[in-house]
Amino acid sequence: MIRILGIDPGSQRTGIGVIDVGEDGRSHHVFHAAIDLLGADTFHERLKRIFDEVGATIEAHAPAEVAIERVFMARNPDSALKLGQARGAAICAVVSHGLGLAEYAAKEVKQAVVGGGGADKGQVQHMVGVLLGIPGRLQADAADALAVALTHAHTRSSTERLGIPRTAWRRRR
Amino acid sequence: MIRILGIDPGSQRTGIGVIDVGEDGRSHHVFHAAIDLLGADTFHERLKRIFDEVGATIEAHAPAEVAIERVFMARNPDSALKLGQARGAAICAVVSHGLGLAEYAAKEVKQAVVGGGGADKGQVQHMVGVLLGIPGRLQADAADALAVALTHAHTRSSTERLGIPRTAWRRRR
Repeated sequence: MIRILGIDPGSQRTGIGVIDVGEDGRSHHVFHAAIDLLGADTFHERLKRIFDEVGATIEAHAPAEVAIERVFMARNPDSALKLGQARGAAICAVVSHGLGLAEYAAKEVKQAVVGGGGADKGQVQHMVGVLLGIPGRLQADAADALAVALTHAHTRSSTERLGIPRTAWRRRR
Repeated sequence: MIRILGIDPGSQRTGIGVIDVGEDGRSHHVFHAAIDLLGADTFHERLKRIFDEVGATIEAHAPAEVAIERVFMARNPDSALKLGQARGAAICAVVSHGLGLAEYAAKEVKQAVVGGGGADKGQVQHMVGVLLGIPGRLQADAADALAVALTHAHTRSSTERLGIPRTAWRRRR
């Protein structure tokens, strides 16, 4: 069994999802949350919260591997800068705990979870709930975090099935 | 006497500068460095280096206050994303040590160090060397880090002279 943390960083809300993947390749839900950053007094405080909460999740759930969504090209420089800072905070929390990260493009995540790269957000939310047996409607950012964890689970089990050495996915970093 | 850390974050090189400001308002050079990130294998490794080196500087020199340059509007979303991540890593290193940050626009830094908001990089490099009595040509990113530390020294001593409560500059965060 392997435990995977998925992160969907954002400067307004950052999604966190933890799953376990069994020897049989089946994934099980462990934990998910959306860190709400809108209540923070300053932008620095938001980054601190992301750093602290991602760190606390790693300490509480001890994931062996971490996956994060590769960033789509942001709409404009200002939002890219904000997203970049949120992402830097999340990545620092991971690497400061001695863990590496695998990155997946949004298209790969949709392909892995819904089966088509053109799926919309609602379909991803729905399928994450179905795959992990979570009833009700998942919060969107938490669903995206679980989706990237599922993508990593799927990719690593495929590479293991194909006999590709474990180091291969690490190059995605 | 107060010790100030200035940071000029960048994804290729991150500048660090530490100065002491005496009761007389005069600044003294303590330390400067440019963290070269181009040799890192991955972008995550760059962020880890920024986080680790800024943290190590804080532990080695124990600054009481930290200043960082506010970001000019980046040229394009891709460079904004990279800069944002570098900035997020630097800010996390600071806040995880329990310190706050003051931010200054590039124009304020040029005004404080050279006396004109339209000064070029070379003038800033030159004047930082003159003000701190550092012989020879300073590395550009280290000079920018010392410049933002000097700007903070100047701003905090002005506000103290004017009787503005110390909390005022904290709002810049």
